[in-house]
Amino acid sequence: MSEEQELGITESKEHSPGEWYTEVVQKAELADYAPMGGFIVTRPRGYAVWERLREHLDGWFKNTGVQNAYFPLFIPESYLEKEKDVVEGFDPEVAWVTHGGHDELEERLAVRPTSESIIAPFLAQWTRSHRDLPLRVNQWCSVVRWEATETKPFFRTKEFLWQEGHTAHRDEDDAVEETMTRLDQYERLYKEVLAMPPMKGRKPEHDKFPGAHTTTTIETLMPDGKSVQAATSHYLGTSFAEAFDIKYIDEGENERTAHTTSWGISWRAMGALIMTHSDDQGLVLPPTLAPKQVVVVPIWQEDTRDEVLEYAADIAAELDEAGIRAHLDDRDHRNPGFKYNDWELKGVPLRIEIGPNEVEDGEVTFSHRPDGQSVTKSSTDIVDTTREQLDEVFAKLYASAEETLEGEIREAESREEILGTIGQYGGYVKCGWCGDEDCEEPIKDAIAAEIVMVPLDRDEEPVHDECAICGEIAEETAYFAKSY
Amino acid sequence: MSEEQELGITESKEHSPGEWYTEVVQKAELADYAPMGGFIVTRPRGYAVWERLREHLDGWFKNTGVQNAYFPLFIPESYLEKEKDVVEGFDPEVAWVTHGGHDELEERLAVRPTSESIIAPFLAQWTRSHRDLPLRVNQWCSVVRWEATETKPFFRTKEFLWQEGHTAHRDEDDAVEETMTRLDQYERLYKEVLAMPPMKGRKPEHDKFPGAHTTTTIETLMPDGKSVQAATSHYLGTSFAEAFDIKYIDEGENERTAHTTSWGISWRAMGALIMTHSDDQGLVLPPTLAPKQVVVVPIWQEDTRDEVLEYAADIAAELDEAGIRAHLDDRDHRNPGFKYNDWELKGVPLRIEIGPNEVEDGEVTFSHRPDGQSVTKSSTDIVDTTREQLDEVFAKLYASAEETLEGEIREAESREEILGTIGQYGGYVKCGWCGDEDCEEPIKDAIAAEIVMVPLDRDEEPVHDECAICGEIAEETAYFAKSY
Repeated sequence: MSEEQELGITESKEHSPGEWYTEVVQKAELADYAPMGGFIVTRPRGYAVWERLREHLDGWFKNTGVQNAYFPLFIPESYLEKEKDVVEGFDPEVAWVTHGGHDELEERLAVRPTSESIIAPFLAQWTRSHRDLPLRVNQWCSVVRWEATETKPFFRTKEFLWQEGHTAHRDEDDAVEETMTRLDQYERLYKEVLAMPPMKGRKPEHDKFPGAHTTTTIETLMPDGKSVQAATSHYLGTSFAEAFDIKYIDEGENERTAHTTSWGISWRAMGALIMTHSDDQGLVLPPTLAPKQVVVVPIWQEDTRDEVLEYAADIAAELDEAGIRAHLDDRDHRNPGFKYNDWELKGVPLRIEIGPNEVEDGEVTFSHRPDGQSVTKSSTDIVDTTREQLDEVFAKLYASAEETLEGEIREAESREEILGTIGQYGGYVKCGWCGDEDCEEPIKDAIAAEIVMVPLDRDEEPVHDECAICGEIAEETAYFAKSY
Repeated sequence: MSEEQELGITESKEHSPGEWYTEVVQKAELADYAPMGGFIVTRPRGYAVWERLREHLDGWFKNTGVQNAYFPLFIPESYLEKEKDVVEGFDPEVAWVTHGGHDELEERLAVRPTSESIIAPFLAQWTRSHRDLPLRVNQWCSVVRWEATETKPFFRTKEFLWQEGHTAHRDEDDAVEETMTRLDQYERLYKEVLAMPPMKGRKPEHDKFPGAHTTTTIETLMPDGKSVQAATSHYLGTSFAEAFDIKYIDEGENERTAHTTSWGISWRAMGALIMTHSDDQGLVLPPTLAPKQVVVVPIWQEDTRDEVLEYAADIAAELDEAGIRAHLDDRDHRNPGFKYNDWELKGVPLRIEIGPNEVEDGEVTFSHRPDGQSVTKSSTDIVDTTREQLDEVFAKLYASAEETLEGEIREAESREEILGTIGQYGGYVKCGWCGDEDCEEPIKDAIAAEIVMVPLDRDEEPVHDECAICGEIAEETAYFAKSY
């Protein structure tokens, strides 16, 4: 096997998506497996993508009244127990610290699986008057959930990076609006940064966040027909406010209970990103998130080396100065073919090829990572031209992901039809649903598909009058899909 | 007690520095105590300072070849045991995870007290050839050390935020140079961002980081005469490289062992910052780190309200647009005196007062937080004028901290002189030292002062020929001080 082949992707996205995914993550140097099962090491290339994603979202949060803070990594067991749904929901998944140094602790400490139970008491402490509301804090941190299922980097790991926002409001309207603001920002992130078309919906009652009144969700469809829960926001009603005593004095001097929310997105977004755009040559990233947006590859013979290299270096420097993240690959011990493969594997969205012809004609040749399309352009206005090419690459990625989603929402009117449609095509199947969790069971048991969402609007008429499973009156529309 | 007094600082920096410090931290809304002893909650105002500090340093790191990454929160006990000095140094302070969900783990997991033992095996995995070196990774995260001593927000907490850099190099020279590069960047941070004059030195052999060949340190002097270890870098020699097998093939095809370093700064830097500049009115921050750099306070009577407010709002908007972090305090239910006290307490470096006179004359009145000095200037070129005023505030803070340090390095030639000088004046006492830890003991026992550093240069002649404690030949100069 040649060096090129060893370095490249050997698995097929179409035929063995699981193995292919893991190979892309490792060979593109995004992450490695840690020695403890269920944990990964996020390598610089992977972390740089997360940093950029964070920068975008963090800016939007700050522009809409959110402040970052940092709360302890540990939560005393007694605090976790104060909200009964939380303890029931997370207890089986908690990592427990029992010893500090050589001593056993008097009370076990949970490594945060989510921070409502340690943040709510402080929202209570900081809330006195209606003037203190809304109160919004957010933290970028890691959480630990001891799930037994198989590790899939970024999709399913015992420790994962995320952001968790926690807010307190005067009333239901204000709190619900908050959950919509954040859901819209997550939607925008998928559309404008990750180049993925998101769907917005609500989780069915039986699949809400523990302690939540309503859980709203962003779902994205993967090329293999499975859905990913890609971000969520929760209207928590007064359940945490009551458990932790978040009260305020209103304009009329009356004491009232606040309404709270929480919302989060994890590095699963990166998993969905990698899965959506990448291919059998390796990683594909949109220019918005790529650590390097452009690689400049000079192609020389012995006698043209100096002039080609100088021209290429000037182009790279000009792009760099304009804020385009460009890299000049001037390695002497590698040939252009090796370099092409290497940067395709690592997901650089745009390649600029420069040989003696380009130098002579004052041109450059662009090659688009997603489809290999290439075009030769004048090097005058190289910055603007490169920006246009990057925009084209982004548009291609979005269009391709949109095409995957289109036509993947089908209807069904019976249990058999649900099973058959998802079995054959994957994607989403929408149908009338009575609202009873029991009607999800036979679908789950047969093909591991579940109700990933229902429409955002509670008053929306169901797609059919009858529940596709039991035949009773349909209360809403269920979207069934297999999911990650 | 009036509301103003309750809100303000009641303790004295001079007479009860410990209580004063805690009061400033809490009343300026930087941090609160968490329910578990030893932990704090970093509030938005405090976290914003940390974020800015991080931004500065992170930019410098990235410009000098450092890449961010993220390694697991947990380290298997067997990994911690691979480097014997590390396990001895940290074992008494480790928080242990023993249970995941309802099951006891087969191997205990340490919550990272520092990450050499989980990062080194990956430096080994990623290092093949001399071309892979130097290899530099850094992470911004929290670490846990189960110290039994009393909690002091930012100075001493069981969990703290920090950055830890880890690098691998071809040889000693390259690795030692790395530790100096990072020490210089920490020095720059103190000088240019925190407005504090740092001292650079080396830790004595008996106080090095576990497993290190050399620990270099930044020390800063607090107003109460105590020294703070404000950042450190460690040349680790080949101890971790040997324990974790970090090897590379050199140009001559020989296998060689890498040399590694690590370096870090924690939120203790924020503690030192607060302690250094703040006063009995509350928090004082340099403009470089202040979440709000300028507060604009309009002063109106009933009949001048609209014109004063409009003028003030225009000024605030103009500053904001120019990238100066300005806040207009237009609260109707608070008088100017309350607002002055409030923003002085919270550490806004510069106040702009605007009354009817200022409006009429097209002027503004600046007031400097550190010393209350005020000056009236034309509002033409308000952006440039404000920048000048902010620079003046920064310069005042630095000058004042420098004055504290000056004259606080004294010499001593005997044990009695060391004890007497530190007892009377605090600060640093430098003296000849034989290099034996035993000679530090009597000073430690008597007044809790220790050798906080020795000169960076190992070949520097000692300040005196004889050890001030035992009278034997002095090998180097010891700097004794009480420390945080």
